[in-house]
Amino acid sequence: MLSADTLAYAKSKIRDIPDFPSPGILFKDITPLLADPRAFHIVLDSIAERFIGSHVDAVVGVEARGFIFGGALAARLNASFVPARKPGKLPAKSDRVSYKTEYSVAELEMHVGSIPQGARVLVVDDVLATGGTAKAAAELVTTQGGNVVAFAFVIELGFLGGRRVLEPSRIESVMAY
Amino acid sequence: MLSADTLAYAKSKIRDIPDFPSPGILFKDITPLLADPRAFHIVLDSIAERFIGSHVDAVVGVEARGFIFGGALAARLNASFVPARKPGKLPAKSDRVSYKTEYSVAELEMHVGSIPQGARVLVVDDVLATGGTAKAAAELVTTQGGNVVAFAFVIELGFLGGRRVLEPSRIESVMAY
Repeated sequence: MLSADTLAYAKSKIRDIPDFPSPGILFKDITPLLADPRAFHIVLDSIAERFIGSHVDAVVGVEARGFIFGGALAARLNASFVPARKPGKLPAKSDRVSYKTEYSVAELEMHVGSIPQGARVLVVDDVLATGGTAKAAAELVTTQGGNVVAFAFVIELGFLGGRRVLEPSRIESVMAY
Repeated sequence: MLSADTLAYAKSKIRDIPDFPSPGILFKDITPLLADPRAFHIVLDSIAERFIGSHVDAVVGVEARGFIFGGALAARLNASFVPARKPGKLPAKSDRVSYKTEYSVAELEMHVGSIPQGARVLVVDDVLATGGTAKAAAELVTTQGGNVVAFAFVIELGFLGGRRVLEPSRIESVMAY
């Protein structure tokens, strides 16, 4: 478990950007956290330690910021890394799912054959907002016969209710607002 | 140093996709490598070991596949991670550079203030093709007063001549075609 001081240190590296990507949205910018090796390690350690003893076969990272945390976590957990990408980016045959985001309607793709039958999968993204993106990634996993054992986020925006969209799955977030 | 067998194992996880993203292009798909924890670790180890003893302050990862390797390498090297992103994705004030890719003209952005004056920077991407993208990322670093100590790639497509575009900088690639 993170101490309160350690968590506060990591949280101090999140920067609020008003009116991005559209007016009235207060965007949580993770780039100062990524720029600080201690804060980045705190986040990776915090997520990884929650999965000690609970085997993870594959980490699904959601394009694009989920790739940064997901790739590093897959390496830590000695798991496969599977990208969930925006349409048209994956070169081979892919499944596609449409979903609503906080801002718009979007689509996500995953290569067919990415997830072995019964694989234990952790879905990783930087922010849990409405939960639409993470739910879409989970649908792609389930379509392939995988088992989403948990979702992990750096930041949870509690007031947007994403947790309710993903329950009853296990949901881990490092810091909440 | 990787043994020839180890390198061959990682290389066996690269998949050729004909005619992607456009007819006549043979795309090197890294997703099977990412799906194989041993192969992913071979690549990360291979790059990281080349920078033992040569201090790296920051790893710049190029959106989007460069985020997967760049994030994991920044964590390994205990360095900052700085994303170089496609236009309009970064929330705060950014520098922008235009460049030619193998396929088209593109732009790359980096948050102003990402790179401290004199910082030693490693630019990471999955593939070295024409070198245009990596050179653009390096320009963003240099604009901010950073010092690109090396470029690192998983795959180098030697026949496209990207190495000549980036020289005399140090260029490290795990596997070449």
